[in-house]
Amino acid sequence: MNAEIREDIKFAVVGAGNGGCAMAAHLALMGFKVNLYNRSEYRLKDIKKTGGIHLEGAVSGFGRLDKITTDIEEAIRDVDIIMITTPATGHRNIAKMAAPFLQEDQIIVLNPGRTGGALEFKNIIKQTGVRKEVIISEAQTFIYACRIVGPARVKIFSIKDRVDVAAIPAYKTRKVVEKLSCAYPQFHAAESVLETSLNNIGAIFHPAPTLLNSARIETTEGDFQYYIDGISPAVASVIEKIDRERIKVANALKVKAVSALEWLKFTYGSEGNSLYEAIQNTKAYKGLKAPDTVHVRYIFEDVPESLVPIASFGRIAGVPTPVIDSVIEMASAMHNINYWEKGRTAEKLGLKGLSVDQIHQLVLEGEVVIPQRGIAEGEAQGAEGDVVA
Amino acid sequence: MNAEIREDIKFAVVGAGNGGCAMAAHLALMGFKVNLYNRSEYRLKDIKKTGGIHLEGAVSGFGRLDKITTDIEEAIRDVDIIMITTPATGHRNIAKMAAPFLQEDQIIVLNPGRTGGALEFKNIIKQTGVRKEVIISEAQTFIYACRIVGPARVKIFSIKDRVDVAAIPAYKTRKVVEKLSCAYPQFHAAESVLETSLNNIGAIFHPAPTLLNSARIETTEGDFQYYIDGISPAVASVIEKIDRERIKVANALKVKAVSALEWLKFTYGSEGNSLYEAIQNTKAYKGLKAPDTVHVRYIFEDVPESLVPIASFGRIAGVPTPVIDSVIEMASAMHNINYWEKGRTAEKLGLKGLSVDQIHQLVLEGEVVIPQRGIAEGEAQGAEGDVVA
Repeated sequence: MNAEIREDIKFAVVGAGNGGCAMAAHLALMGFKVNLYNRSEYRLKDIKKTGGIHLEGAVSGFGRLDKITTDIEEAIRDVDIIMITTPATGHRNIAKMAAPFLQEDQIIVLNPGRTGGALEFKNIIKQTGVRKEVIISEAQTFIYACRIVGPARVKIFSIKDRVDVAAIPAYKTRKVVEKLSCAYPQFHAAESVLETSLNNIGAIFHPAPTLLNSARIETTEGDFQYYIDGISPAVASVIEKIDRERIKVANALKVKAVSALEWLKFTYGSEGNSLYEAIQNTKAYKGLKAPDTVHVRYIFEDVPESLVPIASFGRIAGVPTPVIDSVIEMASAMHNINYWEKGRTAEKLGLKGLSVDQIHQLVLEGEVVIPQRGIAEGEAQGAEGDVVA
Repeated sequence: MNAEIREDIKFAVVGAGNGGCAMAAHLALMGFKVNLYNRSEYRLKDIKKTGGIHLEGAVSGFGRLDKITTDIEEAIRDVDIIMITTPATGHRNIAKMAAPFLQEDQIIVLNPGRTGGALEFKNIIKQTGVRKEVIISEAQTFIYACRIVGPARVKIFSIKDRVDVAAIPAYKTRKVVEKLSCAYPQFHAAESVLETSLNNIGAIFHPAPTLLNSARIETTEGDFQYYIDGISPAVASVIEKIDRERIKVANALKVKAVSALEWLKFTYGSEGNSLYEAIQNTKAYKGLKAPDTVHVRYIFEDVPESLVPIASFGRIAGVPTPVIDSVIEMASAMHNINYWEKGRTAEKLGLKGLSVDQIHQLVLEGEVVIPQRGIAEGEAQGAEGDVVA
């Protein structure tokens, strides 16, 4: 990495939660100019007082920030890269707010996109009528494991070695990886946003085990090991089916998906013939407690922004997802929220009426050529048509 | 009650589990002739040795049995009343086995029928081609709370004050109640088997809380209070939706259904503004432990024989049951069993293609007049037609 390049690249970090604070401070420590945005003032109060954020753990030092603001226009003005670190439930609103102020060539990275994040973001920008040439991309996971531990103070437990990222259209991913590399050499190009979106492992490990341990979470305030005690053989049997449905959907969309079992093996080196065994053999899960409430991102984020879009991709590809659907329905009943309506449906992702091939065209090239109507039945559909996305 | 009548009435009790043993012994103690049947020999071994069953608890004494047998023909020959006390999952098979040996005017009582028990039983008898005039009826719940406590020894904890029963056709219910009254004055006539079937409260309290506590059941072997700890606000929120779906289905079938909240109030005097509160205020639930495995009747009986038929009635009546469906789907994933296929669907209940009015006709009169085909569209359908059930 190179100090001259650093001075040239400006970041905005959108969202001042655990992750956003860690990222903003770390980028500042690396020497970049960083603006930090948060919707509400209260998360910024202490940071404004000190002018930045103290880091401890895997990285330590004080990251002095440039602008600390609740004004999205001020936050993103003249920056090169906009790192969005809010829960995926915030992506829609940020897209709407930011759209009028986006500038040519800005790069937007959703950290992470969950499932369909970049597609949805792009669709909202399009609906607002903004025609700026920005690059929208999504990471497959969040690069830091970290937590706010005091006023303007964050602990970074670990930084991942590798994070996949994809832009839409996919041929722009190279540019995103290149631009990010000065700060994060860990980012690697995925084939497309379908790959980052359909390898969303949180969709498997978060909602169903939380539901199937809901009473225990509520009566013990999460005082049990989330994975080791919470994923018993019966629960593992359910999440195995969910994982299988996800992989079938991915395959139908011609996307390589890694199974949860494979993921545990290559991420943690966990051995096991079944998902249950592999989880029990994952040392990183020992002692890891459950959330203390069922009103938690594991449901309110992962159901609408991970499972609903996977099920919606399934609908498009003609792959039934009955177990995923049952989790969505039961979470809706538990939270008194219609997650089907709230979540990322094909319509919200801008995929309504598209075929699998057209979706590929969209994620690879950024637009779809819709054959013109009125062609006689049986006649081969030509390449002429309207560009819609 | 009258000793002369008693000598006239002979019972068969089919199923030598906790309930069947209590019922057989109690009936014998009351002075009736009782045969006890079980499919497998091992449950009968100790009872054959002693010639009967010892009762303790609410009733005590030794009930000497007439025949103790694994031969269904021997068990039901020349009896007046056949009390079936197996899990509902056994009803199909018993109907098939017993059909060839049924005699005119015998009364069959499913204790209880769960949902659709009598309809299914009748449908199977019909399919076997047996044309004997028997009365098939179902109780809404089981009259005893009891447990086998030793070899040929049962403890009766309590006997219910009132149990609703209905025959199919409903005009024969009076005869069932009259015949049973010499032994059980507690049996009362329900309007029809739709009423007994759709007021199946086990459908509400058994499958969903078991699923939503599955990991806790497996890791603690049920060492927590099933209702008090297992039905937290989040779980109560789910079962409230399930109950609401059941009531909507019942209403669409013109059946009065009691809500779970009302049921807790009149059964246990439990007060509460919500199902959660009423359950927490139910003294009978204090200390009641969970099952020690998820491979339990609460799922393997109540899903196929309670929730699947309620959902199937919903399909007929045009009432969606998304939360019930999600429980069926998730239980199927957990047990690796397709409960939709295994359970009591409209087809198995003999209701396929029937309208709500025709179902009423079937349960009230025992047969349905199907208007003849080929009537010109728009023409009023007459009463002429084929009798099909």
